[in-house]
Amino acid sequence: MTDIPKSMNAIVLTGHGGLDKLEYHDDWPTPQPGAHQVLIKVHATGMNNTDVNTRSGWYSKDVTEATTGGAYDAITDDDGTWGGSGITFPRIQGADVCGTVVAAGSNADQTLIGKRVITDNWVRDWDDPLNRDKARYYGSELDGGFAEYCVIDFRNVGAVDTDLKDAELATFSCSYTTAEGMLSRAGVKSGDRVLITGASGGVGSALIQLANRRGATTIAMASAAKHADVAALNPAHILDRAPDDLAAALYDATGDDKVDVVADIVAGPYFPTLIEQIARGGHYVTSGAIAGPIVDLDVRTLYLQDLTFHGSTVVEPHIFRDLITYIEAGEIRPILAATFPLKDFHAAQEAFIAKKHTGNIVVIP
Amino acid sequence: MTDIPKSMNAIVLTGHGGLDKLEYHDDWPTPQPGAHQVLIKVHATGMNNTDVNTRSGWYSKDVTEATTGGAYDAITDDDGTWGGSGITFPRIQGADVCGTVVAAGSNADQTLIGKRVITDNWVRDWDDPLNRDKARYYGSELDGGFAEYCVIDFRNVGAVDTDLKDAELATFSCSYTTAEGMLSRAGVKSGDRVLITGASGGVGSALIQLANRRGATTIAMASAAKHADVAALNPAHILDRAPDDLAAALYDATGDDKVDVVADIVAGPYFPTLIEQIARGGHYVTSGAIAGPIVDLDVRTLYLQDLTFHGSTVVEPHIFRDLITYIEAGEIRPILAATFPLKDFHAAQEAFIAKKHTGNIVVIP
Repeated sequence: MTDIPKSMNAIVLTGHGGLDKLEYHDDWPTPQPGAHQVLIKVHATGMNNTDVNTRSGWYSKDVTEATTGGAYDAITDDDGTWGGSGITFPRIQGADVCGTVVAAGSNADQTLIGKRVITDNWVRDWDDPLNRDKARYYGSELDGGFAEYCVIDFRNVGAVDTDLKDAELATFSCSYTTAEGMLSRAGVKSGDRVLITGASGGVGSALIQLANRRGATTIAMASAAKHADVAALNPAHILDRAPDDLAAALYDATGDDKVDVVADIVAGPYFPTLIEQIARGGHYVTSGAIAGPIVDLDVRTLYLQDLTFHGSTVVEPHIFRDLITYIEAGEIRPILAATFPLKDFHAAQEAFIAKKHTGNIVVIP
Repeated sequence: MTDIPKSMNAIVLTGHGGLDKLEYHDDWPTPQPGAHQVLIKVHATGMNNTDVNTRSGWYSKDVTEATTGGAYDAITDDDGTWGGSGITFPRIQGADVCGTVVAAGSNADQTLIGKRVITDNWVRDWDDPLNRDKARYYGSELDGGFAEYCVIDFRNVGAVDTDLKDAELATFSCSYTTAEGMLSRAGVKSGDRVLITGASGGVGSALIQLANRRGATTIAMASAAKHADVAALNPAHILDRAPDDLAAALYDATGDDKVDVVADIVAGPYFPTLIEQIARGGHYVTSGAIAGPIVDLDVRTLYLQDLTFHGSTVVEPHIFRDLITYIEAGEIRPILAATFPLKDFHAAQEAFIAKKHTGNIVVIP
C-alpha cells in the first residue's frame, strides 16, 4: 500500500439540504480497510435517486416532499435514511462503484487484490445476512464511492469478467439489483405481462431488460420524448407516461387491457389507475415513488381482485451474484447516458434531477 | 323426491337498495338440482357482510359508500358483485348453509343423500377449479340459502361429523374460510405476532381462533363494549378499536410496538396507523373494508419496510376441506350471537347492521 496517497479528492455531503451541502474536497483522508474490508481505487461511480433523496431528506416522514425547503432541521438521524442505521455527516455518497481492489484487510479475501470489481450496495451483517434490519446502504449509512478511493466489506464486491468499460460497469449494481429484486419478489415468469413505469430511468431500463430476460411481455411507460431511447431496450410495447385512459391504451397497444404485474417506481397521482389494470391474482411491486409517496388506495381493488403488493428495498444476497452472471453472459447491457468528472458533481446531479437522460449518469474521479 | 314441496318460503332480493328490496315469499318455486348439484333442506343459514354489501351495491365503484342513497340505478350487473359473473334479480342470498342433502343430480355423489352438510361459498368451475376468474359466490351470483331449500354443486358441500347444532354449524363457512384464506395467504406461522381488527365480528373472531390454532400471538382490536366477548376467544392481548397512539398501546400491552402481520377487515381512516406498526418484511392482509375502502397509503412505508400486502377473496379449494377437519377436531368453536326466523329477516339484518353482537347471526327457515 505504499503508493496509496494519504488524502484524496471526494464529494462530501455535510448535511440534509440543497446542492450546497455537497462539497468538493481535494484533501479528504483516504479510508483504511478494516479487517473484513477491501480498499478500492475508484474508476467510476453511478448516480442514483437515493443520492438525491438522502440529501434532501425525502425518506423522512417529517418532510413530505423532496422539494420542501427549510424543514431539514426537523430530520433526525434515524429518520433521514432507510436501512438498518441512521445517517451521520460528513458522508461520502455513491453506491455504484466500479474500481480495482488495491488492498485487503487481514480477514478479507486476498485474491481480490488487482481485480476489477463492482459493489453490492447492501452491506449485510454477514453473520446474519438475511436479517434485513441489519442491512446498511452503501453510500448512505456508510461512506461510498464519490471519491478516489473507498472501502467496503470484501463480501460486497464481485469481480466481473467482461469487456465493458468502467463507466458502463458502474451503471448496473444499484438499478439492476433493485429491478431484479422487484421481479424476483413479484415472481415474474415467462409469459407474464409486465407494465413498467418510469421506463427511461435507471431502474426502469433495468426492469425492461431483466423482465425480457425472464421471457415476460414488457410494456414500457415513458414520456414521448424518451420513446426512441426506450425502444432501443426492446420492450414488447411502449405507452405514454400516463395515458388518460390506461385501459384503452393497453388494449390498443397489446390487445388486452389487463397486466399480470405492475413494476412501479413512480407512484403519485397515477397509482390508482395502475392498480385498476392488474388482472385478478396479479402483482404490484414497488421500489420507489418519485411522483409522490402518498397515494389513494381502494382497498376493494386489492382484496376483491386477490392482488398482492410487494415493497422491495433490501434484496436477498443472491440477487447481486445473479446479476454478475447476467452481465458476464451479455444478457443485459449498460445504458450509459453521460459521464461527469468528480469535480463537476453539481452539474452531474443537476443533469440527473432534470431527468432528460435515459439510463444512468456516472461520475469519474 | 316425492316429499319435496313444489314451493317454499324464501327471502328474495329484488334489486340493489334498502331493506325493502328483501321480500318474504311463501310460494317461491323450490329449486331442482342440476346434474352436478345436490338439493339441500336448509336447517340454518348464517348472515354475512356480503349479504348487506351486495344489496346496497357497496361493491360498485359507482357508489362510494354503502349508505349512499338514490344511486342504485347507476349500478350495472357486472359492477354490483365481485365474483366471476354479474348479479341478476330476483336473487336468494345466503352463503352459509347448514342442511341435509335430500336429493342429488345424476352426476352428483349419491352417498351425500341424508347427510348433514355445510356449503363452500366459492362455486368453482370444477374443470378449472383454481381459476379465480371463473369462481362464483354462492348466494350472490347464484341463489343461496335464505330459503327452505337450496341447490349447489355437490363438490361444494362437506359432511361434518360433529355434535354441534345446526345454527352453530351455519356460523363457520363464510367467516372461517375467509379468515383461514387470509392467514394462509399471509403465511402466518407459529410465533408470529398477528394484529386483528374488527375482532368481535364474524371474520374477526374466526381470525383469532384460527391464528391461535397456528400458534401465533394474537392481538385483538375491538371496541371496549366487546372486550369481554372477545376475551372468551382467548386472544393473547386485547386493544381498543382504534387507539390514538397504536405504537404505545401495542408496547404497553405486549412489550413490542411492532407486529409481523396485520389481518384487517376494517380499513378506513385507521389504515395508515396500522401499516406503520408492521415490522420490516411483514405482511398486511385484507378481505374487507367496513370502515371505508379508500385509504391513504404511504408507498415509502410499503417499499422501504419490504412489506407485502395481500388481498384475499377467492380462496383455494383446500381451505374449506381444511376447515371441516378443524371443526371435527374441536380446534375452533362457533360464536353464535343470535338466531332469527326466516320471516323476521328484516329484524335479523337490522341487528346485523347495528353491530352490537359478537360472532354470527343465523337465520332459521
